Amino acid sequence: MTTPTTALCRYTETEIFYRDRNLVGDLMEGGGDFVSLMMSHILGRDVAAHEVRVMNAILITMMEHGLTPSAIATRSVYMSAPENLQGAVAAGLMAVGSQFVGTIENNARLLARLVAVPEADRPALAREIVAEHRAAGRRMPGFGHHLHRPDDPRALKLLEIGAREGLQGGHIAALHTLAQAVDAAAGRHITINATGATAALLGDMDIPVPLMRGFAVISRAAGLVAHIAEEASRPSGRFIWDLVDRAIPFDADGPSGGR
Amino acid sequence: MTTPTTALCRYTETEIFYRDRNLVGDLMEGGGDFVSLMMSHILGRDVAAHEVRVMNAILITMMEHGLTPSAIATRSVYMSAPENLQGAVAAGLMAVGSQFVGTIENNARLLARLVAVPEADRPALAREIVAEHRAAGRRMPGFGHHLHRPDDPRALKLLEIGAREGLQGGHIAALHTLAQAVDAAAGRHITINATGATAALLGDMDIPVPLMRGFAVISRAAGLVAHIAEEASRPSGRFIWDLVDRAIPFDADGPSGGR
Amino acid sequence: MTTPTTALCRYTETEIFYRDRNLVGDLMEGGGDFVSLMMSHILGRDVAAHEVRVMNAILITMMEHGLTPSAIATRSVYMSAPENLQGAVAAGLMAVGSQFVGTIENNARLLARLVAVPEADRPALAREIVAEHRAAGRRMPGFGHHLHRPDDPRALKLLEIGAREGLQGGHIAALHTLAQAVDAAAGRHITINATGATAALLGDMDIPVPLMRGFAVISRAAGLVAHIAEEASRPSGRFIWDLVDRAIPFDADGPSGGR
Amino acid sequence: MTTPTTALCRYTETEIFYRDRNLVGDLMEGGGDFVSLMMSHILGRDVAAHEVRVMNAILITMMEHGLTPSAIATRSVYMSAPENLQGAVAAGLMAVGSQFVGTIENNARLLARLVAVPEADRPALAREIVAEHRAAGRRMPGFGHHLHRPDDPRALKLLEIGAREGLQGGHIAALHTLAQAVDAAAGRHITINATGATAALLGDMDIPVPLMRGFAVISRAAGLVAHIAEEASRPSGRFIWDLVDRAIPFDADGPSGGR
Repeated sequence: MTTPTTALCRYTETEIFYRDRNLVGDLMEGGGDFVSLMMSHILGRDVAAHEVRVMNAILITMMEHGLTPSAIATRSVYMSAPENLQGAVAAGLMAVGSQFVGTIENNARLLARLVAVPEADRPALAREIVAEHRAAGRRMPGFGHHLHRPDDPRALKLLEIGAREGLQGGHIAALHTLAQAVDAAAGRHITINATGATAALLGDMDIPVPLMRGFAVISRAAGLVAHIAEEASRPSGRFIWDLVDRAIPFDADGPSGGR
Repeated sequence: MTTPTTALCRYTETEIFYRDRNLVGDLMEGGGDFVSLMMSHILGRDVAAHEVRVMNAILITMMEHGLTPSAIATRSVYMSAPENLQGAVAAGLMAVGSQFVGTIENNARLLARLVAVPEADRPALAREIVAEHRAAGRRMPGFGHHLHRPDDPRALKLLEIGAREGLQGGHIAALHTLAQAVDAAAGRHITINATGATAALLGDMDIPVPLMRGFAVISRAAGLVAHIAEEASRPSGRFIWDLVDRAIPFDADGPSGGR
Repeated sequence: MTTPTTALCRYTETEIFYRDRNLVGDLMEGGGDFVSLMMSHILGRDVAAHEVRVMNAILITMMEHGLTPSAIATRSVYMSAPENLQGAVAAGLMAVGSQFVGTIENNARLLARLVAVPEADRPALAREIVAEHRAAGRRMPGFGHHLHRPDDPRALKLLEIGAREGLQGGHIAALHTLAQAVDAAAGRHITINATGATAALLGDMDIPVPLMRGFAVISRAAGLVAHIAEEASRPSGRFIWDLVDRAIPFDADGPSGGR
Repeated sequence: MTTPTTALCRYTETEIFYRDRNLVGDLMEGGGDFVSLMMSHILGRDVAAHEVRVMNAILITMMEHGLTPSAIATRSVYMSAPENLQGAVAAGLMAVGSQFVGTIENNARLLARLVAVPEADRPALAREIVAEHRAAGRRMPGFGHHLHRPDDPRALKLLEIGAREGLQGGHIAALHTLAQAVDAAAGRHITINATGATAALLGDMDIPVPLMRGFAVISRAAGLVAHIAEEASRPSGRFIWDLVDRAIPFDADGPSGGR
């Protein structure tokens, strides 16, 4: 088996390097910005100032949405094991899966298909993609929101920021093309949601699809620490336990065992 | 640095050994019992049949208690990432911490203190331990239950099983001594709870205190798989989300930030 | 939104029920067996004695395989946070994913396709399935092992136990049919591995595919507690850290950032 | 039970608020900075620009230190379940426990004791604290490093940044007082390490001790995403598995079972 290598970090007794930069003499001394550094560290390339501004908007958008399943998991675990803050965050992060954040990736794959064909062919391909999903009874990833109607305000603002910051790459335009096909097929306006807009912006920054949810994980980690800080100040864990336990009645019959 | 070793497993192309026993020719062929094997594998010693019966009772007792914080965390994560069953179980297991299961260990440490002194001195030490906790305003681990009163039925049955199976070691007797001191100090009967009884039984089987919660983790893993099986059949995740989100109102004032 | 229900547990001040059975008076008093109970609790049905014997063999087989990625993760976390045993187990359980245990499910889906057609048509369908995988350059789930050759001894024994215990349902037979097609296409013998045999046995017990990895999670939880017990006695975490850190050299060039 | 409240988030069909600020119209439109926002969101107060600069330095410092136990856990899990990036990050975050990052909190508690007494009394209290630890055979949290000698370069730079940014509160000064007592008692220079310096800076920003490791979790989440990005480009998981499995020999004797 060949020996793998790493480019992330090396150190001696007196110096530490992140990739090719001296942590203390360069990054810390220079007043480095965490968001900028983490982007270049993850992506292995320099990042431009406008990309950092776009990423800040994305991270802020994904950080918080109230008492979501993710926050409920974190608060329930924190109540049971407050000595173990990292476990409570980890529990909530596990909810960054297919049903919400995973749609970023699914949408990004559709945008990549569109961007890969000549611009003139994209409207037809967009209609084809929408038709495929409708035929299969599958939801279009990146579209629709159970609450925010007629438009998800975060999505519109993210796309506006992406355009203002001059993102090139065609994913934002492809998302608008896809949106026209979605609306036409539905016969009414369906909102682009925050995950769809995020996919377009990340795609235009050339971030590999499998890494996209990584940025959601980082942002959500911060949001979940805020939930823990609030839980420490205004405990809700036992209230949630009682609430849920009382609201879901026992019924011996009904489906069971994964069926 | 000296090289560590392992006694858990070795294998060749054609054979696998768990400690000194051949997995296929001995353990599987012999119709081995999982509970018995896992005990000897974890503890590194032979276990007696009566110990296996006691452990079965403990594992069964800790497996399930309805829609606890642990189950709520698992269901919330499963709803968000059903493709990732192990993450949903892991999220719920993180709740096996200080506030509920950790009391097994705290109680076990008290019982170890009692067992370490001559039997005649235990009642006085028990009173001293109770007085310490009362003076410090700390709850006695292993005693009291927010629901099961006047007695936690699981605790009584576990202690009965321990006695019936002939557990020696003095921890069960020490727990009864401690219970008398608790009741005397409170001026009323306080139940021994399931964690207290579990601590006594595990202590009498000479299981090291820091490993005790490991058995709770194994048992709870099974219970959480049952919650996932039910969640797949009767989804509750979105209901819980709506319920909690609506029940906890926004209030800009009040304590914040961990204060 | 309709209110979901639960059949897993109900309780009063003095009694606890797991499904329709009294925990204390029935399950604990009756000397219940944990494996049997967890099966019926998860599956929502009575389980036969021969099914419990088969499950014990499966759980034992999946419990341990030495210093796997799962065990390495658990030991690395335990070294860093020994106060938090459940987090170390949870970290290792996260490795119960697509690359090893997930193949149980992928194999089970193939077996379900075979069982769904008349027996006479299965050899042809098996050849078709094998050809599909070869054309796509995909490995056949449930076949081959990087170490155990020419045969995975666990797989042969599991299938023998399944046959001996009289499992019906056709999945074991279907696996043998599939194995013939695999060997014919490869022009040499490829072992059925433990995950393949497990899929056949679980399939013959009519366990839903998405729940299959749940049993791996329960078994592995026990195995990981054994690794923690050993780590507490013979620490390896710092040794592993030094070993890995020294073995993987820094190389600023080479692929980066998920590309 | 009284109903808890939340100040973190509220939303309508068309608007979302983080605390009292409009997400879209205020935070996103204003080109908000993620680090600044997450600080105010977690702490529930405005944060000054110099605090944000200090936090950036802290987050950058804690993000990466090569192939640590945390990174090894993440890479091992990612190899086994690449479809589940969040689980791999969560596994590595579980290593943010008592042995490394927990020392931030332990050091911060010592600094809080020093800051609580008049300045003139601090040297004597520092000597007393050091003597207590030596008598108990306990390491002084925040001091010493197994690699970085004679000084941890990150610690010196963090303290310099804290001073340059004008942090008040006395924790930095208290750490220097403690360092003098440590050196005097040891009869040689012992480095302040990065966790000690971090404790002083976080303390001077009045961040509650139990939340301190939350910032390590956020920073490490980013570092672990970088390890996953590299693992996707230069796989090391199987190499680590083989390396560890071969390096740790089987030895049936020796301590076992947590003893």
